[in-house]
Amino acid sequence: MDQVIFANHFLTMTGAGVGYHGTGALAIDHGKIQGLYSREEGEKIKAKKKLYLNHHVILPGFIDGHIHSSLAILRGIAQDTDSWMMGALAPFENILTRDERLLGSKLAYIEGIKNGTTTFGDYEVFGEDICQWIEKIGVRGNITQFVRSAKRKAYKPGELYEFDEEMGEKSLEENCKLYDKYHNPYGRIRVLIGPQGADFVHKDLLLRCRKEAIKRKTKIHLHLQQGDRETEQIEKRYGMRPVEYLDSLGYLDENLLGVHLTDCTEEEARLVAKRGVSMLFCPGSIGIIDGIVPPVLPFLEEGGKVALGSDQASGNNCHNIFNEMKLTSLFSKIKTKDPKTMPAWKSLRLATIDGAKAIGLEDIGSIETGKWADLIAIDLHSPTMQPVYTDPLRNFVPNIVYAGGKIAMTMVAGEIIFDGEKIHTIDEDEVYQNIKDVVPKISERGKPGFKETGGINKIFMENGKL
Amino acid sequence: MDQVIFANHFLTMTGAGVGYHGTGALAIDHGKIQGLYSREEGEKIKAKKKLYLNHHVILPGFIDGHIHSSLAILRGIAQDTDSWMMGALAPFENILTRDERLLGSKLAYIEGIKNGTTTFGDYEVFGEDICQWIEKIGVRGNITQFVRSAKRKAYKPGELYEFDEEMGEKSLEENCKLYDKYHNPYGRIRVLIGPQGADFVHKDLLLRCRKEAIKRKTKIHLHLQQGDRETEQIEKRYGMRPVEYLDSLGYLDENLLGVHLTDCTEEEARLVAKRGVSMLFCPGSIGIIDGIVPPVLPFLEEGGKVALGSDQASGNNCHNIFNEMKLTSLFSKIKTKDPKTMPAWKSLRLATIDGAKAIGLEDIGSIETGKWADLIAIDLHSPTMQPVYTDPLRNFVPNIVYAGGKIAMTMVAGEIIFDGEKIHTIDEDEVYQNIKDVVPKISERGKPGFKETGGINKIFMENGKL
Repeated sequence: MDQVIFANHFLTMTGAGVGYHGTGALAIDHGKIQGLYSREEGEKIKAKKKLYLNHHVILPGFIDGHIHSSLAILRGIAQDTDSWMMGALAPFENILTRDERLLGSKLAYIEGIKNGTTTFGDYEVFGEDICQWIEKIGVRGNITQFVRSAKRKAYKPGELYEFDEEMGEKSLEENCKLYDKYHNPYGRIRVLIGPQGADFVHKDLLLRCRKEAIKRKTKIHLHLQQGDRETEQIEKRYGMRPVEYLDSLGYLDENLLGVHLTDCTEEEARLVAKRGVSMLFCPGSIGIIDGIVPPVLPFLEEGGKVALGSDQASGNNCHNIFNEMKLTSLFSKIKTKDPKTMPAWKSLRLATIDGAKAIGLEDIGSIETGKWADLIAIDLHSPTMQPVYTDPLRNFVPNIVYAGGKIAMTMVAGEIIFDGEKIHTIDEDEVYQNIKDVVPKISERGKPGFKETGGINKIFMENGKL
Repeated sequence: MDQVIFANHFLTMTGAGVGYHGTGALAIDHGKIQGLYSREEGEKIKAKKKLYLNHHVILPGFIDGHIHSSLAILRGIAQDTDSWMMGALAPFENILTRDERLLGSKLAYIEGIKNGTTTFGDYEVFGEDICQWIEKIGVRGNITQFVRSAKRKAYKPGELYEFDEEMGEKSLEENCKLYDKYHNPYGRIRVLIGPQGADFVHKDLLLRCRKEAIKRKTKIHLHLQQGDRETEQIEKRYGMRPVEYLDSLGYLDENLLGVHLTDCTEEEARLVAKRGVSMLFCPGSIGIIDGIVPPVLPFLEEGGKVALGSDQASGNNCHNIFNEMKLTSLFSKIKTKDPKTMPAWKSLRLATIDGAKAIGLEDIGSIETGKWADLIAIDLHSPTMQPVYTDPLRNFVPNIVYAGGKIAMTMVAGEIIFDGEKIHTIDEDEVYQNIKDVVPKISERGKPGFKETGGINKIFMENGKL
C-alpha cells in the first residue's frame, strides 16, 4: 500500500447525506482509495507512508465546475457596474497576451488549491497552456476551449453578432485537437467541447460541436441563457428564447453542462433540468456581475444535477468554493425567505459528490473504494471550526459551509500538493514575481481603452473611491 | 516618537471615499496617530521602532458593531432551522456556565482579531468577564450588558412575556455598575446601557435605561424590531408596532444603537434613520437565521448611520467582518437586482469610518492625526490580493471586500496584538485546550434538552446530514 491516512473524522459524502465516519484509517494505493478501515486495521496495513491527521476532518476535494482561470490576472478590475463586460473588463481583457493569461491561470489554481479545490472545470482560450500547467501543478482538470464564430468587435445595442464561420470552424478544430492530445479518462485531464453560447456560435457549428462531443464520448460545456443580451440575439435570429432554440436542436440532454441560466425563468430551468442537463451554478460571480440569483432551486427541485463554479476573479473576485457554498445556502434562504432552504449539507454535496456527478466525473467526489484519492484536510484547531462537537450532534458541516475552514492538506490522486503552508509542485513566489513584472505592461496597454470607455472605475478613481 | 510604520499603500478612509495614500510613513506615539508623512520625512523621525510593511496595505481596523461573543462556544449548533432560538439554540444556551460563556468569548475575539477586527461591540451576559478579557487581549470594546425583565421560560406562541420587575431593575443596576467600573472614554473600554429589546423590558425600566444612559453620557444598545415575535408582543401589549412604540417614548434619537431592524418596513427604517438612530446591520446572521435582508438600503438612503455586526457564531457562524462586508454588497445587489448597488468602497466604509461614527466612537475608524492607532495590514502577497494594480485604477478595495485579505498585523492603540501568525497577548492553544475540556460537559448537559426539543439538527443527525 502506498499510504494510510489516520484521522478522527471523515465526511465521506457517501449515501444521501455527508457519510460521516469517525476515527479510522484510509488506505490509498496508486492514487486510488483502497478502503476506509478502523485504526487497528490501519495500523496492521503495510504501507510506505502513514499520515496522522489527528485534529482534522478529511473530506473529498472541492469541485469548481466552471472557471475562466486566466482572468485572475485582472482580479478586481471589473465589478460594481451594470456594464461588466464592455464597460469594465473589455479594455483590459482585449490587450492581454497569451503569457499574461497563463499567469492569471497560475494564480487562480494556486488560490483554488489553497482553498481545497482539487478539480477545476476550466473554460479557457488557450487550453494547451492550461493542460500543461495542470500536469505540472498536479490537480484534476475538466478542460474546455472556447469555440466561437461571432466576431470580436464593438456591437451596437441590439445589433446581431457577425459570424466568421471559418474562425468558428477553426476554433472547434482546435478544441478537438486539444481533446485528442490531452483527454485521458484514466488520468487527471478530461477535455470537453466548448461552444461559448447559443448566441456566439452559428447553428451549423453548434450542431457539429454536438456531433464531435458524442463521437468522443465527452461532454459539452456551454453558457446557457446567461443573460438578456444572449436572449435578445437568439430571439432576433431564430424567433425563440435560447432554451427553446437549443431544445429544438436536441441540445438539451445529459451530455450538456449548462452554465449560469441567469436569464432562465423558473419554468425554463425546470425544463432544462428535466432534459438531464447539468447546471453549473456560480452564485458569487452572477451576484456581483448581474445582481441576480439564477434559478438553482427549481432546477434542483426538478431533480437536476448541479455543480458550483467560481467563474472569474475579475468579477467574483475569488476562486474559493467555501465562498460559493456559503452563498448558495444564503442566497437560497433569502430568495425563499426561509432559513430552512438549502441547509449546509446540501451545499457541501454540490461542492463534492453531487458536483462530481454533475460534471460527469464518477470517479471522484466521495471517499469510496476505487475512487481517486482527491482529498482535503480541514484543520480543526482553527477558530472557525472550534469547538468540535460530536454528541448529541456534530457541527462540522455547518461550520465548514458558513464559517469556512483552514485547509491543512490538498491531495490529488494520492499526491499531497499543498500541506497548509506550501504548494509543493510549483514555485509560488516565482508566479508572484512574474505577475509583478507584467502588471505595469498590462496597465500601460489597458490605459487608453480604460480612459476611452469611461466606466464606473474611472469615476471611482476620480472620486477617491478606489 | 514610539514608532513609524512605512508602507506603500494606505487606505486612510478619510474624505468621502477610501482616502488612498501611496508610499508613506505613519508616525505613532502613545498609541495615537501623529501624522502620515512621506518616506523621506519618516526616515528623519527619531523613533523607538521602525516597521517596514512593504507588501501590505494599511487601513483602520475593522469595527464589529454587534456581537454576542460567548455564543461562539456553541458555533455550528443552530442554523438551517425556522426555530433558531427555541428549536436549536436554547437547549444548549440554557445549560452554559459562566466559565463556558467566557471561553466562547475568548474564541470569538481570537477569531475576530485574526480577521482584522479591532473594536468589538459586545452585548453580553457577564460584562465584567468581557471587560477583563478585553483588558488582557488588548482590543477595543464597546460593551453592553443585558438588561431584561422578561422571565426566561417557555412561552406559548403569542403568550405575553411575564415581567419580573425586580430582576429587571437588578439587571440595569448591574449594567450601571459595569459602566462605573470599566467605562473610560480615554481608554479601550466604553460601556453602554443594554435594554435587550422593547419586548423584553417593562416600560418603566425602558425609560429608566434611557435616563441612566443620558446621565452617563453613553449610548443605548438595543435590539430594534428584530422579528415578528417582538412585533407581536408590542402590538398586543401597547397596540403599536415596536418602532412606533419606541418613538412614542422618545426613544428614537442619536443616543440609540438599534440592532437588526429585521421586521421593519422600508418606511419604518426611514423613520428610524431620520430620528438619528444608528443601525447595527448583521447580514450574515440574519440571512442564516431568518432568511431576511434587513432594510439597510432605505436606512442609508435616508442618511442613517450604519455599522456592521457579526452577531453570534451559533448562527452566523463566524466573526469575520470581511464576510459581513461582502454580504452587505452582495445582498444589496440582489435585493435591488442592480450590480451597481453598494459598491465595495461603501461596505468598506461601513466596516471602518462610518461604522465608528455609527457606534459613537469618533476617535477611531480612519487614519488621521489624533486618532487611536487601531490599524490592520493586509498582505498583498496572498492570492486574493494579487495582482496589485495602481494605474489606471487601483484594485485593493474591491478585492478586500469581495475576495477577502490575509491579515498580517492587527494593532490596537499602537500595540501589535497579532502579527499574522500569532496573537501576542494571550495563549491561543490554552484557549483551545480549555474548550476541548468543556465540550464533553456541554454535550452531556445539553443532550436531554436537545432530545426533547427534537429540532432540525436531531433529524439531520438521524439521517446522516451532519
